[in-house]
Amino acid sequence: MNALSALLSPRAIAIVGASNDFRKINGRPLRFLLEAGYAGALYPVNPKYAAIGDLRCYPSVAAIGKPVDLAIVAVPAAQVLATIADLCRARTPAAVVFSSGFGEGGEAGQQLEAALVSAARAAGLRLCGPNCLGLINAFDRVVATFSQYADGPMPPGPVGFVTQSGAFGTAIAALARARGMGLGYFVNTGNEADLHFAEVMDAVLADPRIRVGAGYLEGVKDGAALVALAGRALAAGKPLVVTKVGRTEAGTRAAASHTGSLAGADAVFEGVVRQCGIVRARNEEQMLDIVEVLAHCALPAGNGLGIVTQSGGAAVLMADRAEELGLTVPALGPDTRVALRKAIPGFGTADNPVDITGQFVAEPGLLREAVRAVLDDPAVDVAIIWLQLMDAHVDKLVALFGEIKAFARKPFVVAWVAASPTAIASLHALGIAVLRGAEPAVDAVAALAEYAAAQRRAAAAVSAEAVPLNTDALPAGLVPSLAAAQVLASYGVALAPAVVATNADEAVAAAVRLGYPVVLKVESPDLPHKTEADGVRLNLASAQAVREAYAEVVKNARAYLPAARIEGALVQPMAGGAVELVVGLHQDPAFGPVVMVGLGGIFVEVQRDVVFARAPVTAGQALALLDRLRGRAMLDGVRGQPPVDRHAVAELVAAVSRAGAALGPRLSSLDLNPVRCGPEGAVAVDWLLVLQ
Amino acid sequence: MNALSALLSPRAIAIVGASNDFRKINGRPLRFLLEAGYAGALYPVNPKYAAIGDLRCYPSVAAIGKPVDLAIVAVPAAQVLATIADLCRARTPAAVVFSSGFGEGGEAGQQLEAALVSAARAAGLRLCGPNCLGLINAFDRVVATFSQYADGPMPPGPVGFVTQSGAFGTAIAALARARGMGLGYFVNTGNEADLHFAEVMDAVLADPRIRVGAGYLEGVKDGAALVALAGRALAAGKPLVVTKVGRTEAGTRAAASHTGSLAGADAVFEGVVRQCGIVRARNEEQMLDIVEVLAHCALPAGNGLGIVTQSGGAAVLMADRAEELGLTVPALGPDTRVALRKAIPGFGTADNPVDITGQFVAEPGLLREAVRAVLDDPAVDVAIIWLQLMDAHVDKLVALFGEIKAFARKPFVVAWVAASPTAIASLHALGIAVLRGAEPAVDAVAALAEYAAAQRRAAAAVSAEAVPLNTDALPAGLVPSLAAAQVLASYGVALAPAVVATNADEAVAAAVRLGYPVVLKVESPDLPHKTEADGVRLNLASAQAVREAYAEVVKNARAYLPAARIEGALVQPMAGGAVELVVGLHQDPAFGPVVMVGLGGIFVEVQRDVVFARAPVTAGQALALLDRLRGRAMLDGVRGQPPVDRHAVAELVAAVSRAGAALGPRLSSLDLNPVRCGPEGAVAVDWLLVLQ
Repeated sequence: MNALSALLSPRAIAIVGASNDFRKINGRPLRFLLEAGYAGALYPVNPKYAAIGDLRCYPSVAAIGKPVDLAIVAVPAAQVLATIADLCRARTPAAVVFSSGFGEGGEAGQQLEAALVSAARAAGLRLCGPNCLGLINAFDRVVATFSQYADGPMPPGPVGFVTQSGAFGTAIAALARARGMGLGYFVNTGNEADLHFAEVMDAVLADPRIRVGAGYLEGVKDGAALVALAGRALAAGKPLVVTKVGRTEAGTRAAASHTGSLAGADAVFEGVVRQCGIVRARNEEQMLDIVEVLAHCALPAGNGLGIVTQSGGAAVLMADRAEELGLTVPALGPDTRVALRKAIPGFGTADNPVDITGQFVAEPGLLREAVRAVLDDPAVDVAIIWLQLMDAHVDKLVALFGEIKAFARKPFVVAWVAASPTAIASLHALGIAVLRGAEPAVDAVAALAEYAAAQRRAAAAVSAEAVPLNTDALPAGLVPSLAAAQVLASYGVALAPAVVATNADEAVAAAVRLGYPVVLKVESPDLPHKTEADGVRLNLASAQAVREAYAEVVKNARAYLPAARIEGALVQPMAGGAVELVVGLHQDPAFGPVVMVGLGGIFVEVQRDVVFARAPVTAGQALALLDRLRGRAMLDGVRGQPPVDRHAVAELVAAVSRAGAALGPRLSSLDLNPVRCGPEGAVAVDWLLVLQ
Repeated sequence: MNALSALLSPRAIAIVGASNDFRKINGRPLRFLLEAGYAGALYPVNPKYAAIGDLRCYPSVAAIGKPVDLAIVAVPAAQVLATIADLCRARTPAAVVFSSGFGEGGEAGQQLEAALVSAARAAGLRLCGPNCLGLINAFDRVVATFSQYADGPMPPGPVGFVTQSGAFGTAIAALARARGMGLGYFVNTGNEADLHFAEVMDAVLADPRIRVGAGYLEGVKDGAALVALAGRALAAGKPLVVTKVGRTEAGTRAAASHTGSLAGADAVFEGVVRQCGIVRARNEEQMLDIVEVLAHCALPAGNGLGIVTQSGGAAVLMADRAEELGLTVPALGPDTRVALRKAIPGFGTADNPVDITGQFVAEPGLLREAVRAVLDDPAVDVAIIWLQLMDAHVDKLVALFGEIKAFARKPFVVAWVAASPTAIASLHALGIAVLRGAEPAVDAVAALAEYAAAQRRAAAAVSAEAVPLNTDALPAGLVPSLAAAQVLASYGVALAPAVVATNADEAVAAAVRLGYPVVLKVESPDLPHKTEADGVRLNLASAQAVREAYAEVVKNARAYLPAARIEGALVQPMAGGAVELVVGLHQDPAFGPVVMVGLGGIFVEVQRDVVFARAPVTAGQALALLDRLRGRAMLDGVRGQPPVDRHAVAELVAAVSRAGAALGPRLSSLDLNPVRCGPEGAVAVDWLLVLQ
């Protein structure tokens, strides 16, 4: 049995610091385990007692004398290190540490936490926590927690929930229970001194009884582990839904003050999780909505949403939201419309969204036949059925949904506003997802469609490859223009030609070779931002202009920074392409090299319209990235311009990402600004590569 | 007693078409009225029965022989007109018509509806419906409905709810009940053949027992009435919260197929309701969240949000959302931090958001003192207290919130995730708003702050005035440039100087007078879009250039449209100002002339970043409009540009809006594109005025 199995499915549990006061933090787990009927061995450890209830209480870990899979450590912070040492000696494979006063509370706590981890690792003991509420495996009645959630029923179900926050995680678990959603696992990872989110979720998803993973994150310490987890989850067909706080700058500040996590740039997190098929929910309610749908529905083949309602208003609300989220609400085919006209009364609407009016209460068959017709339409991939209240008709309606479930060959969900608990439980028993309202239903179905698309992408994926680069010869700091160009070109990044001239004559010769008009930029390892030094001259059309420009840019650079080492000037032809992009690489603390692409000019300056993905990406993934830009319509050509060659842009982004992956930890940053794009292609005009 | 009082608070009710089967649509209202204990007189009317239960049943309306305030009409569509005639003869002031088969179902139904309205209006009878579920006045136990909502308890409360949709409205009412929110009124206006939303809401808000109005809208037929309602509600200090479906184009299409309403452009609705102090919610759940807060909280003096939580994660989520919605989460003052450090344990966070950790369960005083310190901070205007579950501690916590309520001099709300019904009811009894989660709480508090700002604006308002204009002399269609300039200038719209030259010599003379460089634009009533005809030349710096340009633009215009009447060319100086805006007027079918302002170029072309308000607006209101632009940072100066003179822009927008209001129904549209803006002011360079 490995340590994670010992943690999640222990055959024997020791509770170190157990209390006979079952209301206390150190008394509650024993009460919960006994009440739940945990079938394994239980060993309370506390020198104060000979017994707790009917159980023998041991004076020390050593005194147990039998194998223990999991130790619950519920002693004051000052005693934790000694307890861990005892557990190591007893070769216990896993421990969950409730105690607080570690990494979350200042330098002394951080040192204590580090000592804890090194002691445990030396002996092969894996730790959950410290500063955590513990864990629950509801299938096997392992209630190794003091969370309030365990005060109520914990019916097991196909959802595995792992949370970095104890209080928020308890809230989410309680909300899941209130919805009739069974959590197979509840794990609070706390400070993540040893085990962190990705490792625990990986182990939870390995349980065949788990169909969906749900996670609450405040920060990601090991981005690569999260990406690897996502890959395995995708391959296993088990969707992973996460909420991560810290979307805005204010939020990120608050997160930094709350945990020791490296929150990273949220835009990077957003880009990476979308790239690797993790579904991100904006808050806890939406996470549960999405989990509800992913736990019950097959994957739709596309984005076509069919809507059947008893309210025109709900129809509009859902059509609105679907459009916002990139789902389509397709017009129905002629056969479908004929079938609908037969099925629904004259005053309903026989196109998508379909309004069957309240008449279906008197004639339930209306609903069944309308849904049948809509699901049969080739343009529809998934359906939402909206209704409200109907407390007096629950049995009839549940029977009807059972019939629909029996014939449906495409996924559907029921949005039932103010549904009774009976209605919800009955639909769950039929394997049908129930949502609380119109907008939540559309949001969750959009997430289902997004996940289905991620699965299709994964199936079709040609993975990007990065040939490692020997970077030993490259200096740290700003890489000289031509050396940087060589590196980038070796990965296939399209760059505007560039020649370094060390005097005015060479500059003129270069201009003749490249063809007028040309651009001149002062070349110096000390002046990354040439424009600020007034070291750039555009549109030089003659030898005379080049000579004057050469003298000027060198003089200006000297004036700007007398100590700068000036190596001459870069000569480039003027580039075409009406649309400016910015493309770059960034070393993310959690995910390593990430590639960024954005629209240039005011789009990036005013609106920060940029998207990220972990390097490397394929050209196909890069195309999908472009579709996430808010101002993507620019690429289709505005003001009479022809559309940009998106494939060329995607190839450039993919090439940049390969360079980033190859540079690996040596990368500090790369900025291609601007990349000029037009119908003939995409070319980086300016590049700034910094190594570390 | 006026007709609306008769409708909402009748002393006697006739039920025409009453059934003795209490499960039927025409039987349910009588059952509801009897069960609720309605204190007025009840007169069932149906020739089929002599009595229903203990009540005498009348063969006809005429046979009642006593005054009736409200008639419930529950007969088939074909009999409605005769019933209305009976009611008119009996001088009944108000009727609610359940029957469907009118305007919602084709031409015959529309004709029937028109006949209904003209018969009723001729006799002074006011109608609610047809095709509606009826209404409830919960205070006076008037349950004149067949809605399922009436199957459960209907505790009266300070919220008046008016809905155009029956099914969706019932869902919302049921959700309100599930939250422990009392609805004083529930009115479904259905087809709105006679009485519409604004009139009914006006009457509902006139009841002193109502503190907040909540509305569900699918379309607005009479925009002026809605604006007038908003003004009265604002003056009465009764907030009005509405959800309107049809945000996107897909939604608007669906609405058009659902009702006969003129949905109008949603952006216009959005602009107008914000302008007049109506709070708009994006869906039904958010509407109830906002109503909860508005019904319980005093108005905050500003946008400073204090947050007290037991979860760092919730803190981040709320700080994120607050930033997105324009609330601030201010750093706390030194005094506050000292007070907090005293109150909360070492491992909590003593800055905003304040994390008091789970320790407050053991020491409730922590929470009280933390909230006291935060509310005392001068930068905090309103607070959110977040907690979760705590089923075992409800009494203790409710007592604590009671203490906080007693000392609090600023508004606060409790975000209690998975709160028990007891907890919610107890807090309501203390007059405290309870929200279901972190994000809903911030959304609702942001709406509270927005409403408070609307109240402050109303208090400070200098209303915009529009001097009526004699437009008799102006032709319909495109107004010639100089005539249009005269109209606009008379309202104070700043325009670039313009001279019409009828030959090249005049053009040169004009250029000399205006100063080189100049712009030349062909002038023709048949060529509104001069650029398309290649009829514009910019940056002309000499007499020679002007002459050539004159010949070219005239020639190009002739080639483009040989039949065009060409009146010469407009000569203008080149305008400065680095930022381009578009400003315009539009005749909205619901709200009349509305003014639009947006950022020019790609912002309007690609991103449709424009906002609307009903004309006229003051310069102050125009400033607020600019703040609603997504790309508003452009106005602060990007790429080293100095900031734009926002006040000049606002004056121009206000002037345009006055012109729009003065033109009134004669306006078709006005486009000022571009308006060039810089630190020295804002000037419209091009104008296109179309009258009807």
